[in-house]
Amino acid sequence: NKKLKIFSLNSNESLAQEVADEIGLPLGKCSVKRFSDGEVQINIEESIRGCDVFVIQSTSNPVNDNLMELLIMIDALMRASARTINVVMPYYGYARQDRKARSREPITAKLIANLLEKAGADRVIAIDLHAPQIQGFFDIPIDHLVAEPILTEYFKSKGLEGNDLVIVSPDHGGVTRARKMADRMKAPIAIIDKRRPRPNVAEVMSIVGNVDGKTAILIDDIIDTAGTITIAANAIIENGAKEVYACCTHPVLSGPAIERIDNSQIKELVITNSIELPESKKSPKIKQLSIAKLLGEAVIRVFEEKSVSTLFE
Amino acid sequence: NKKLKIFSLNSNESLAQEVADEIGLPLGKCSVKRFSDGEVQINIEESIRGCDVFVIQSTSNPVNDNLMELLIMIDALMRASARTINVVMPYYGYARQDRKARSREPITAKLIANLLEKAGADRVIAIDLHAPQIQGFFDIPIDHLVAEPILTEYFKSKGLEGNDLVIVSPDHGGVTRARKMADRMKAPIAIIDKRRPRPNVAEVMSIVGNVDGKTAILIDDIIDTAGTITIAANAIIENGAKEVYACCTHPVLSGPAIERIDNSQIKELVITNSIELPESKKSPKIKQLSIAKLLGEAVIRVFEEKSVSTLFE
Ligand SMILES: Nc1ncnc2c1ncn2[C@@H]1O[C@H](COP(=O)(O)O)[C@@H](O)[C@H]1O
Ligand SMILES: Nc1ncnc2c1ncn2[C@@H]1O[C@H](COP(=O)(O)O)[C@@H](O)[C@H]1O
Repeated sequence: NKKLKIFSLNSNESLAQEVADEIGLPLGKCSVKRFSDGEVQINIEESIRGCDVFVIQSTSNPVNDNLMELLIMIDALMRASARTINVVMPYYGYARQDRKARSREPITAKLIANLLEKAGADRVIAIDLHAPQIQGFFDIPIDHLVAEPILTEYFKSKGLEGNDLVIVSPDHGGVTRARKMADRMKAPIAIIDKRRPRPNVAEVMSIVGNVDGKTAILIDDIIDTAGTITIAANAIIENGAKEVYACCTHPVLSGPAIERIDNSQIKELVITNSIELPESKKSPKIKQLSIAKLLGEAVIRVFEEKSVSTLFE
Repeated sequence: NKKLKIFSLNSNESLAQEVADEIGLPLGKCSVKRFSDGEVQINIEESIRGCDVFVIQSTSNPVNDNLMELLIMIDALMRASARTINVVMPYYGYARQDRKARSREPITAKLIANLLEKAGADRVIAIDLHAPQIQGFFDIPIDHLVAEPILTEYFKSKGLEGNDLVIVSPDHGGVTRARKMADRMKAPIAIIDKRRPRPNVAEVMSIVGNVDGKTAILIDDIIDTAGTITIAANAIIENGAKEVYACCTHPVLSGPAIERIDNSQIKELVITNSIELPESKKSPKIKQLSIAKLLGEAVIRVFEEKSVSTLFE
């Protein structure tokens, strides 16, 4: 007699619909609009009393609007007596502000965790957080899913695997992710090694590992302005690679990203739909894979109070 | 040896500068920008360790951006060891969502109070909250200032006063405010009385009180789309008033507001600078008065740990 309801806000309606379809439920009825002065107006249009509610919202650009929609929805659900409020954030905005890199900076990723909890979230489901440490910013359960297997399956389906391949991390922070993909594809890894010999001297970039004659796959969690990834791709080709693919979970793709990708040596960029791509960002080079099955499975398991941990690897 | 610092965010820089000038201090140095993907980037550029910090920010349109700037700034100040964080909100966005008018609505005004506290605010200074009950949404001290005396002084300086005048409340919710202004101007009051005789039947509007032959001043807290106020003004003229002025504290002025005011019977609309007016909203009919002195006085009194209560009336 437990009841599951899934609601979508405005950031990622088509993914939410896909997740609902996976689960075999209609999306809950609610109206999420703006008042004339820009304030968010939410009205939940069906009873959710006693239900386990899952709200799907990426806090992607416009991040502040999407975040406020989410917080206000949580407030409305709490006041309407939801049994549990489960926040599904395919993309967790502000994740990169996860530490003080300089004095007197905020740690916005922690602030967001606090705000979600204070509003009344009982649980969060996220995918490929920029740093897994962000899980520790929450005092409520957080399930941390991984999209790498979805990306890997796609490359495998192209026949890419084994020793003709090399999985490349665009920086030292991403080596664990590259290692996982490499294991699953029985391929070696390489690392783009950027360093600044002295302060105020240009960065030099070299590649640790062998890419010569190979097909390279660059993997990252977020591609934002695509500066790092396109420079890395070009360096990989210069170092003798046969071809280079790139992939990431979260296609932020802001500013010059699409232009850079189109003009780069990248053969294909494989992304997920954790962030919805507007028409203006579609490119023949970009292949978008769906995470709806992964999310649907996670929602069902959380609802049935089963372990989600096998979805982590 | 207590130290006072004042910071401005992006919503209302010219008011913040005026307040700082009143107090005789420069504004604190901080950079409030956007990353390429739209995320707020804040860096406080001077030490605030041990200081009593006042942050001036209206959560006016774009409300979600302005609110997130404020929350992230509070987070940064807290982590940079401010002694106290005092939030000066000349305009408190979402104040109208202060109760559940229908089932399953949020109470966003309370959510905002919770978020400010959770982020680390120690005190809030606000002006003419849509409902004074919003003070009770906070578990931290809140000083609630009133701009009516500033509006009243302006009308007095025009020679308006006494029995040729009538102060009109545009609805039943605003009668207390109209009463205060009327007392100070030794004038009578009138009330616009709207009611719906039966559901699904057009609203009828009448005026309780005498406006015939008088100069009328309509007073409200917020003027948003200006529908209510312009219809009221026209009704007042139809009921025989000689002329009609309007005034409010918070010039939200969204959508058709300026056009409606320009085309209405309102002779002059008097507002404050709790919300900065963009060039596109300036009109020869609109007179903007500054609340900088009031805010400056409140900041000084809070800093000196003196009572602010005489600024309430
Ligand atoms: N939205 C953003 N866009 C670009 N850089 C960011 C953003 N948010 C945070 N940062 C900065 O990126 C750095 C963290 O990135 P990373 O080294 O990849 O973890 C920190 O110095 C942050 O100040
Ligand atoms: N930004 C807004 N613009 C217009 N109406 C709003 C806004 N925020 C809340 N409301 C609605 O206005 C009503 C409260 O206005 P009032 O009766 O003047 O207190 C409630 O029904 C709210 O749902």
